[in-house]
Amino acid sequence: KNESIQKENDVTQHPNLILTSKSVLEIKSQLGTIPVFDQTLNKTKEEVDAAIKKGIDVPIPKDMAGGYTHTQHKKNYATMQKAGVLFQLLGDEKYAIYIRDMLLEYAKMFPTLPRHPQKRSYARGKIFWQCLNDSNWLVFTSQAYDCIYSWLPKEQTEYLNKTLFKPFADFLSVETPQYFNRVHNHSTWGNVAVGMIGLVMDDEELVNRALYGLENDNIDPKAKDNDGGFIKDKAGKAGFLANLDSPFSPDGFYTEGPYYQRYAMYPFLIFAEALQNKKPELKIFEYKNGVLIKAVDALLNLTDADGEFFPLNDGQKGMSYYTSSLVSAVDIAYYYGTKKPELLSIAKKQNKVQLDATGLSVAIGLREHKEKSFIKKSMELTDGSRGDEGGVGILRYQKEEETLALVMKYTGQGLSHGHYDKLSFSLYENGNEVIQDYGLSRFVNVEQKNGGGYLKENKTFAKQTIAHNTVIQNETSHFKNNYAIASKNHSEKYLFDVSNPDFQIVSAKEKNAYPGTELHRTMIMVNDDKLSKPFIIDITKVTADKKNNYDLPYYYFGQIISMNFKYQTPKTLSTLGDKSGYQHLWKEGAGMANAENVQFTWLDNKRFYTITTATNKEDEIVFARIGANDPEFNLRKDPTIIIRKKQIKNTIYASIIESHGSYSAVKEVAKNAYSNFSKIEKIIDDVNYSSFKIKFKDGREKILILSNTDSNPKKEHSLNINHKKYNWVGAYYYK
Amino acid sequence: KNESIQKENDVTQHPNLILTSKSVLEIKSQLGTIPVFDQTLNKTKEEVDAAIKKGIDVPIPKDMAGGYTHTQHKKNYATMQKAGVLFQLLGDEKYAIYIRDMLLEYAKMFPTLPRHPQKRSYARGKIFWQCLNDSNWLVFTSQAYDCIYSWLPKEQTEYLNKTLFKPFADFLSVETPQYFNRVHNHSTWGNVAVGMIGLVMDDEELVNRALYGLENDNIDPKAKDNDGGFIKDKAGKAGFLANLDSPFSPDGFYTEGPYYQRYAMYPFLIFAEALQNKKPELKIFEYKNGVLIKAVDALLNLTDADGEFFPLNDGQKGMSYYTSSLVSAVDIAYYYGTKKPELLSIAKKQNKVQLDATGLSVAIGLREHKEKSFIKKSMELTDGSRGDEGGVGILRYQKEEETLALVMKYTGQGLSHGHYDKLSFSLYENGNEVIQDYGLSRFVNVEQKNGGGYLKENKTFAKQTIAHNTVIQNETSHFKNNYAIASKNHSEKYLFDVSNPDFQIVSAKEKNAYPGTELHRTMIMVNDDKLSKPFIIDITKVTADKKNNYDLPYYYFGQIISMNFKYQTPKTLSTLGDKSGYQHLWKEGAGMANAENVQFTWLDNKRFYTITTATNKEDEIVFARIGANDPEFNLRKDPTIIIRKKQIKNTIYASIIESHGSYSAVKEVAKNAYSNFSKIEKIIDDVNYSSFKIKFKDGREKILILSNTDSNPKKEHSLNINHKKYNWVGAYYYK
Ligand SMILES: [Ca+2]
Ligand SMILES: [Ca+2]
Ligand SMILES: [Ca+2]
Ligand SMILES: [Mg+2]
Ligand SMILES: [Mg+2]
Ligand SMILES: [Mg+2]
Ligand SMILES: [Mg+2]
Repeated sequence: KNESIQKENDVTQHPNLILTSKSVLEIKSQLGTIPVFDQTLNKTKEEVDAAIKKGIDVPIPKDMAGGYTHTQHKKNYATMQKAGVLFQLLGDEKYAIYIRDMLLEYAKMFPTLPRHPQKRSYARGKIFWQCLNDSNWLVFTSQAYDCIYSWLPKEQTEYLNKTLFKPFADFLSVETPQYFNRVHNHSTWGNVAVGMIGLVMDDEELVNRALYGLENDNIDPKAKDNDGGFIKDKAGKAGFLANLDSPFSPDGFYTEGPYYQRYAMYPFLIFAEALQNKKPELKIFEYKNGVLIKAVDALLNLTDADGEFFPLNDGQKGMSYYTSSLVSAVDIAYYYGTKKPELLSIAKKQNKVQLDATGLSVAIGLREHKEKSFIKKSMELTDGSRGDEGGVGILRYQKEEETLALVMKYTGQGLSHGHYDKLSFSLYENGNEVIQDYGLSRFVNVEQKNGGGYLKENKTFAKQTIAHNTVIQNETSHFKNNYAIASKNHSEKYLFDVSNPDFQIVSAKEKNAYPGTELHRTMIMVNDDKLSKPFIIDITKVTADKKNNYDLPYYYFGQIISMNFKYQTPKTLSTLGDKSGYQHLWKEGAGMANAENVQFTWLDNKRFYTITTATNKEDEIVFARIGANDPEFNLRKDPTIIIRKKQIKNTIYASIIESHGSYSAVKEVAKNAYSNFSKIEKIIDDVNYSSFKIKFKDGREKILILSNTDSNPKKEHSLNINHKKYNWVGAYYYK
Repeated sequence: KNESIQKENDVTQHPNLILTSKSVLEIKSQLGTIPVFDQTLNKTKEEVDAAIKKGIDVPIPKDMAGGYTHTQHKKNYATMQKAGVLFQLLGDEKYAIYIRDMLLEYAKMFPTLPRHPQKRSYARGKIFWQCLNDSNWLVFTSQAYDCIYSWLPKEQTEYLNKTLFKPFADFLSVETPQYFNRVHNHSTWGNVAVGMIGLVMDDEELVNRALYGLENDNIDPKAKDNDGGFIKDKAGKAGFLANLDSPFSPDGFYTEGPYYQRYAMYPFLIFAEALQNKKPELKIFEYKNGVLIKAVDALLNLTDADGEFFPLNDGQKGMSYYTSSLVSAVDIAYYYGTKKPELLSIAKKQNKVQLDATGLSVAIGLREHKEKSFIKKSMELTDGSRGDEGGVGILRYQKEEETLALVMKYTGQGLSHGHYDKLSFSLYENGNEVIQDYGLSRFVNVEQKNGGGYLKENKTFAKQTIAHNTVIQNETSHFKNNYAIASKNHSEKYLFDVSNPDFQIVSAKEKNAYPGTELHRTMIMVNDDKLSKPFIIDITKVTADKKNNYDLPYYYFGQIISMNFKYQTPKTLSTLGDKSGYQHLWKEGAGMANAENVQFTWLDNKRFYTITTATNKEDEIVFARIGANDPEFNLRKDPTIIIRKKQIKNTIYASIIESHGSYSAVKEVAKNAYSNFSKIEKIIDDVNYSSFKIKFKDGREKILILSNTDSNPKKEHSLNINHKKYNWVGAYYYK
């Protein structure tokens, strides 16, 4: 059983995909001296040994995600991939035998399989209900196959190539063009699956198919997938390189958002590593100015203080850089990038590495204590393949362990997983959501909840504008919730300036979400030296060609502590509306502002927060809660407060959002339970300028002036306000 | 400034209250070698130095709890107490001067003070809105005064005694008999305040007043306090010893519940320490078989895995053994008890000690690594001064870091902070609430919320039976929510047996909550060797003399995953009822069981839970959520599922509650998302026996038989069920 294998040194070709003969020798020479690597290897060995003990189980495909056959096939490819690595690094033939025997089972079954009996996908797989999972299978299994390729007798590789792998690759591509020939994260998996097995089998035709797509696909340009996304790319491109060109911005932002980027990074990077090993002449890591490495950096910056991804667009909360695809991503970015020591600190937290040359270099770096902490800085990540389709602006504050992060979204639609959330934002304190983005409505891989798939409420609520912290006009989502129109548009960056850490500003405009209306939102993180942490100024200027109703929700968490306006609470609860997501909100109370300023304080996570907002007397404040029209109890019952301006043409929202105090249940002490502000008031609001007075409770006053049409930092401005002249340079004045 | 003081060694009397001349010398000889003590001392010094720097501020009393004058006077007494200790241990006269100057300010102000202008209390204080806080002031200030007593010129102590302290003691006692002469945790503070200052001034009359109460109080026996509690004790006793006799059971359980016990322990123990120092002949720590030390042990056992107290009766969640009164309690229990090494492990977590001989001994114990972990075991704590008024049964499970704790309450009413919650329970997993007790409705010391005081909803919801996980008859709370009746009754223990760790059982009866109806609840924690952790069997037998409606709510947390019965969700939400707390519940859905078994699975805190319950077809299942009729948004919007049996005389609830699986948002894997049980079914239910069949999904079956009228463990039983004969010994059969 434990006899060591000599063959591996005889053959120069395999492994040559992820592991290579050379890297195997290097790793073996270091084993026992590289703690993180050794540990990961041991854990992997334990897992695989346990799986081998259970025996081989290749059931006839039957179940949806979360079900038995689905889960078993997932386990199979994951175990085979690991067993391949163990075979190479430990030299124990039992791992090769395990892979071989399992592959023979699949080779027996595959030719007999029709498409999967579950008919929910526009691109049904054979082993799984959708081709995406079949592609996962092939990406991982290719690696296992590569590891035993030279060990297998030639007749067996020929048999497997012919019976299992070539047909599998054809199935995913020529037989399913609507899946293979797309720009979409799922299709990337398909491209990579075909490319990986092509590299293993030395099948140039498959590799080219993977890189450049099918030449002819006969796909109807109007065809859509299950999520409502168009199959055809705008530019009609397809294949791995197209998937690298189009969804990634030059900054490495992936237009679908971080949750899908995290998922997509693995096939992108693992195939890039394989290409680099086998076709270095492609210089894949230099493609598009090194976008693959930049994408890893972007993704790490799209996380809160816990490493959890901002749930922009469809994103499941809790997913973080501890996920295994990010272990690969960090290791590959370290090895093929500039060996940034900041990446080592993330790897250290992950406490595991990819079991190849990249993980080896990370483990050596950690052994030599080369890590530096990864400080997330304020940054803008542009969207669009050329970086000119809006973006995401992140404003951050950090003082020792205390952090704030504000994320404002002014991107394009983000393909089929995009939300109708132009100029929305979310706010974090120390890894906790203060003002949340709802994320997706789905319990991924929880079979009882629609087989683990997207829930109806993802479309009817989570994607709708009212589910977001941005302005909704006439109770209708942006672009009338029309994906075709939304996909043609994007918000426009107006200003992003974080050069002054005490006054960081992001500003963007949206002109297309509501034809005839322009939305211009400016968010500022002000670090006032009299306050213990920064506060947020949130201005949304609305310019319209007719009277409309406007709603601006803030999705807070926790319990209401106080407000300074009168309101009524109903005896029975009704929904806030009957469409566009409003049908999912219970109206728990409402009141007229009846003042020029309204304050609202809540307690969450042992901290006090206040929104202070400038109002017109006839503005309405609505308390609402998610959960209406939710017959399966799919939605979280989270609260929101909505500032409602009715039958008005041009208007401006101006608010201060602050984290100002804390509560200790052990000491029973409330510290700074009251806001630091007495009010924010609008002074001027015209086409060119909007200006505000901010009054602190300590008596201080500040004037904020925003230039609305010229963001040039060199431009000289001069403005009279109440007989006082203000002169300044650049798009804003604050003093 | 830093000149050392010689006087202290000249005088033998002071300090002699908490610190003594002897202990001061001992501590000084160890300083620098006792890490936890040294650390606490340094932190205390920092705090006090900062306070001294701010200067003395003794404002005219004006505000409610949470307000400025309230907070300042609280700071004052806390700082004085600490300054006294620093003066003794560090010998820096600035601390003595600070105390003296502040006392002189109080002495100037006190004689001029009327009762506090805020009129909310039945016993208004002078410095604070209620005498309770004035007593806090005196308990702490007495200690400070003792520390500088010998340092002060005699004229000054005479002046302070006459002008400030004696009148203060009289004010709290003879001038406020309705407060002083009660059995109530607040009154304990009053007794101790008077006793402490009596000991400092060597005023025997005050000390006796403290120990035995006022002889004549002229209190109307029907008078009630703000919480609706009776002023007069049933037995008409008063004073410190009466407060020690009556609310404590022989097991050290305090009838008001752990939240108030935690608060009461400080005056009890600090006065006991003072008495032990000055009147050792009283042998106070041996009083009532050493109940004071037992009470500390009881309190530590009334916590979840985080050290948070079970919120029985009025209890604010989050309060834990990290609170400073528990630091004192643990140190005093260690020193005056049997120096249990388990207490050291709690002290180690607390990471601070009381700055006196008790803290010194703890710090030395920790320095010498004598601590042993405090394993919380299953236990019963009886209620009632003689231990015959029901109790609390705690069933626990622990395997490495995985713990479960079930708390069933079958106590007396628990004085004015008691809830109408006979036979209710709560369930914890690893410090998280699985099935919650709502706790109190109050934001302690959050001024915006009713000045930090109890909220209306505490009476209208939190205390009501429907706020608890127990049977409600005809939508009316136990004892018709009548405090006078409730106070005369208690539940009766039927059985508590944890001798078999795999089958732990607690059982109790309630015959008075609903005249004509007997409730008999039995809860069992079964550790089945085929399952990864124990499950709970929950049986409530209802025997009534007429048809009634019964509701049994389970207050779960998190999101609903699935259920196996049909239900409807309404288009608008109405309340579940209009009184007894039902007016605070929104009815979110309901359905008929229409089966012999109903299953309900939810996901909370990344874990899957299921309740499997035996039903009659016409039973109704109601989904409800707290929050209706809550105009100030005081309530938490937590959900509940209610099993409703309508128009039935005798009936039996039989459920299995299990924690069976987990979800990882990072791995996106749901493990064991389905219940382990297919059903629980009633086989027999008569006066003498109730029996059930439990069916596991793996095909196994178990028979449970409960003897309903004889809990004798030696009794032999024999019963025919479906032609099979069962013979066993003791109150239950499970096989
Ligand atoms: Ca987070
Ligand atoms: Ca969203
Ligand atoms: Ca309670
Ligand atoms: Mg969104
Ligand atoms: Mg977090
Ligand atoms: Mg209660
Ligand atoms: Mg806890």
